[in-house]
Amino acid sequence: MAAKAKRNSVVFRPHFKTHQSASIGEWFADEGINSITVSSVQMATYFANNGWKDITIAFPVNLLEIQNIDELAGRIQLTLILDQKDSADYLNKNLSNHVNIMIKVDTGYHRAGIDAADINKFQQLIKSIDNGNRTAFTGFLAHAGHSYDCRSIDEIKKVHEQSKKKLCKLKDEFIKAYPKLTLSVGDTPTCSTMEDFSWADEIRPGNFVFYDLSQVTIGSCKMEDIAVALACPVVGVYKTENKVIIYGGGVHFSKETLPEKPTHYGRIVSLNDQEWTITEPATYITKLSQEHGIIKANDEFINNIKIGDLIFTLPIHSCMTANLMNRYFTFDGKPLLKA
Amino acid sequence: MAAKAKRNSVVFRPHFKTHQSASIGEWFADEGINSITVSSVQMATYFANNGWKDITIAFPVNLLEIQNIDELAGRIQLTLILDQKDSADYLNKNLSNHVNIMIKVDTGYHRAGIDAADINKFQQLIKSIDNGNRTAFTGFLAHAGHSYDCRSIDEIKKVHEQSKKKLCKLKDEFIKAYPKLTLSVGDTPTCSTMEDFSWADEIRPGNFVFYDLSQVTIGSCKMEDIAVALACPVVGVYKTENKVIIYGGGVHFSKETLPEKPTHYGRIVSLNDQEWTITEPATYITKLSQEHGIIKANDEFINNIKIGDLIFTLPIHSCMTANLMNRYFTFDGKPLLKA
Repeated sequence: MAAKAKRNSVVFRPHFKTHQSASIGEWFADEGINSITVSSVQMATYFANNGWKDITIAFPVNLLEIQNIDELAGRIQLTLILDQKDSADYLNKNLSNHVNIMIKVDTGYHRAGIDAADINKFQQLIKSIDNGNRTAFTGFLAHAGHSYDCRSIDEIKKVHEQSKKKLCKLKDEFIKAYPKLTLSVGDTPTCSTMEDFSWADEIRPGNFVFYDLSQVTIGSCKMEDIAVALACPVVGVYKTENKVIIYGGGVHFSKETLPEKPTHYGRIVSLNDQEWTITEPATYITKLSQEHGIIKANDEFINNIKIGDLIFTLPIHSCMTANLMNRYFTFDGKPLLKA
Repeated sequence: MAAKAKRNSVVFRPHFKTHQSASIGEWFADEGINSITVSSVQMATYFANNGWKDITIAFPVNLLEIQNIDELAGRIQLTLILDQKDSADYLNKNLSNHVNIMIKVDTGYHRAGIDAADINKFQQLIKSIDNGNRTAFTGFLAHAGHSYDCRSIDEIKKVHEQSKKKLCKLKDEFIKAYPKLTLSVGDTPTCSTMEDFSWADEIRPGNFVFYDLSQVTIGSCKMEDIAVALACPVVGVYKTENKVIIYGGGVHFSKETLPEKPTHYGRIVSLNDQEWTITEPATYITKLSQEHGIIKANDEFINNIKIGDLIFTLPIHSCMTANLMNRYFTFDGKPLLKA
């Protein structure tokens, strides 16, 4: 991803909400990355405390955290996102330190953001940001989250082209007045599969650091690219029922699943010292309650497992699973710091 | 619930996984409760460190935590549950301290446990437990989790009667050889709606401390009984779209929902200093991503809300939501300790 950003001459500002780990952050620093994205003030504080000096909080600014935001803005280059005049006014009234502001743009996902075509609304909001002496308008930020509904590279391409067209048009409208304005884009599906980002100024993918079964389904990666598995202790083996119970439930995986059948909560992989292998036929966690996971196991699987073993599971949504767990270990047994 | 236990002359051993709070634990202690249930060794350690001396870990014993279990067993009366001979043997081989063992019974939920009718299997397992000099067989524990599929008190009654019949029969088989053996039961739906527990020896409901929208749907409680709401900052108000975005997503609520329509992730209540009120027509969180919640708001709702307000939401499953959050506040603004 760092190489792709370099080829396109765009800033790589990876989203760190996926891993939330100072140790994994260092791997990015080793690639020359010095700007990052997070999704909360708390995460921004954690990474600022771990040496990161240029952080974008890519979630609509929460005014109730104004004190923590101000404290953070006093010691790092902090970029906030917003789409409403009231937020801009409040920041200017209540901050003592300077922040950069990117305006959230809706390019088709329809969650937050101003419709990319609503130039008038952007003009009004930029005016409010300019009028204050704490906020500086620095550009437009979009998250094409509807790429998560894609099921092929062709579909991802359509989302990508649509976003590109809308954002370039928006930039054209304002580039004369704001020659330094930047376009920030970058969900994992488009950043993983598309090549041309030269029209943007920065990319912010996050999930790609681990990938997961959702991303395989979307078409962002192959099963072999998934780089995180949840280690779950086996607490019950029921041979006559071909059932295995693991200590791994909704409080560990989250209860996310995929619309595709069969409904499941993770896929079991086979582990040795150096790697895991994707086994066939697929073995899934088929039921999940708060702490229990239930695996419908074939004969081979159940004959090779006993209570007290650890099984390893590729998660449906690695961001959610990683958020719930406290620690990572690498293959050489090294623990990685986590927020 | 404490009064109901007293009327039935059964031990009240509330499940503390729902709140995971030492402060809320004190409210139980004030009612004369001195035995509790938890679902992990970590939680047991937390409550042991907060003065609780009699704890049941109602999750199949995880042998990988043997050291922590042994440490805990050295300082409190610890009860573990299991349903497999291998687990009993391992405990006897590896513990230096004594633990009580309750055997997990399947009364129809079909998750973990030995089928209540399989007397032979119980005999074999009890023999293994007896043979060791670290484990003492103290009784049978059941969780009628299929009561969560109920949608009326009549349906809950059927589950309750079925469990009762099976467990009483099981107890009859072993009471001569083990005159002190106990029956431990108690999901929130049955404990909330049924009156007769005199046939059991202890009840272990947990969710009732807060209740939630799931329990309303099951028939365990009324909407007015729900005692916890998640406070979510408003970060976006979109009047023309009747849309409000809150800082409250899957990482705060969990993504649990109910099979009933409309699909939603929580119901908004109206708060004043003394209480919240259930407003009509119902306002729901209709979409949830990782950090964002989206509310489809009617005109009255949207005209009375602004960025920076807090909205309060009754959760679908309070155990999951409470597990994800760090703190509680009471109406008088007092923060409650949480694990």
